[in-house]
Amino acid sequence: MSTPARIPEATIRRFSLYLRHLEALDADQVDHAPSGLLAARIGTTAAQVRKDLSHLGSFGKRGLGYSVPALTAVLRRTLGLDRRWRVALLGAGRIGTALFQYEPFRRRGFCITTVIDADPRKIGRRLGDVRIRSEGRLEEALREDRIELAIVAVPAEAAQRLVDRAVAAGVGAVLNYAPVPLRVPTGVALRNVSMLVELESLSHALANGRARPVREEAR
Amino acid sequence: MSTPARIPEATIRRFSLYLRHLEALDADQVDHAPSGLLAARIGTTAAQVRKDLSHLGSFGKRGLGYSVPALTAVLRRTLGLDRRWRVALLGAGRIGTALFQYEPFRRRGFCITTVIDADPRKIGRRLGDVRIRSEGRLEEALREDRIELAIVAVPAEAAQRLVDRAVAAGVGAVLNYAPVPLRVPTGVALRNVSMLVELESLSHALANGRARPVREEAR
Repeated sequence: MSTPARIPEATIRRFSLYLRHLEALDADQVDHAPSGLLAARIGTTAAQVRKDLSHLGSFGKRGLGYSVPALTAVLRRTLGLDRRWRVALLGAGRIGTALFQYEPFRRRGFCITTVIDADPRKIGRRLGDVRIRSEGRLEEALREDRIELAIVAVPAEAAQRLVDRAVAAGVGAVLNYAPVPLRVPTGVALRNVSMLVELESLSHALANGRARPVREEAR
Repeated sequence: MSTPARIPEATIRRFSLYLRHLEALDADQVDHAPSGLLAARIGTTAAQVRKDLSHLGSFGKRGLGYSVPALTAVLRRTLGLDRRWRVALLGAGRIGTALFQYEPFRRRGFCITTVIDADPRKIGRRLGDVRIRSEGRLEEALREDRIELAIVAVPAEAAQRLVDRAVAAGVGAVLNYAPVPLRVPTGVALRNVSMLVELESLSHALANGRARPVREEAR
């Protein structure tokens, strides 16, 4: 398959959101979705929706909107969701365990086949149907299981070292939930997820009167 | 305190990232941070850093960079982190429990004082030092504990109904981890977190050759 022109990251993120809503529309047996409907669902403008989806070719019919099944299929393909991905979870603590058990990952084809932890008491135990393996044998585990993507959920102080080793062992993409931003070489995809970013954008809104004062309207 | 001019949401999100790095620099006893250093740490340009921080007044010294303690203080204040927030967790399942125990939330002043669940077997049990209360008495619990911010971690089908009730009971901000986007009235702050968005942006990168082919460089 030829490599299409690079799509902006913000657009890719909205593709994920469109897909969620298209699947909901499909479940409700809606055949066509106008740009305005998709815009309202994800909180953007119809013009933005049209611009985003123009990256994918031509799907809209004037007056009818986008074909829900056709657009769903092309979004799934564009997001790499038309296949399964072999994923390793590095860190079987609380966050890691919750991520492992997060059903939507599975449904989308992200298969966590490998779980690694540093705690000797956890090695050999199972998380779902996966046996937890020792961090000491990280490279071996990643190669054996032909891991493509690593989800990092280890303590801050262990994260960079572990990711360096995973990258050296051939992992091409890293989703980082450790509470510290990581760095990877060019050519490796990385997303640093900070659960604080969202919460702090809310406390900013509350502190600066963007949200209503608490309890003003209550009672 | 007067309400400052509205700061773009993307800038607010970067404020959170700058703050994390400034705190790390401060721990390393670095006094001043040039815009280029902050830019490199969060993966943006020095011009963007200067533009972002110009929203906060004047902190930079030519040749020296930003004062780490001064900028840390103003970012904390801007993000509403110079006080504690009373937070309720709606849903004490796997994701909810992991969020409850996520140490960085606490350190930033987000105190989860109230935990609500619908499962009768969980009511009365403790999560940390908080007793899990019944969803049936949501409004009473939120008002008693003067909750300002709700973190939603319930199944998709329960989420909107519960948030409607929380908002009616006076909650001013909602952080949504349920796997469905929610809607709230104007004046209530909302962030829908999809853990899939990050993962799908990685699978897009892998599928479209933005990340190196797996194992090409390994062995």
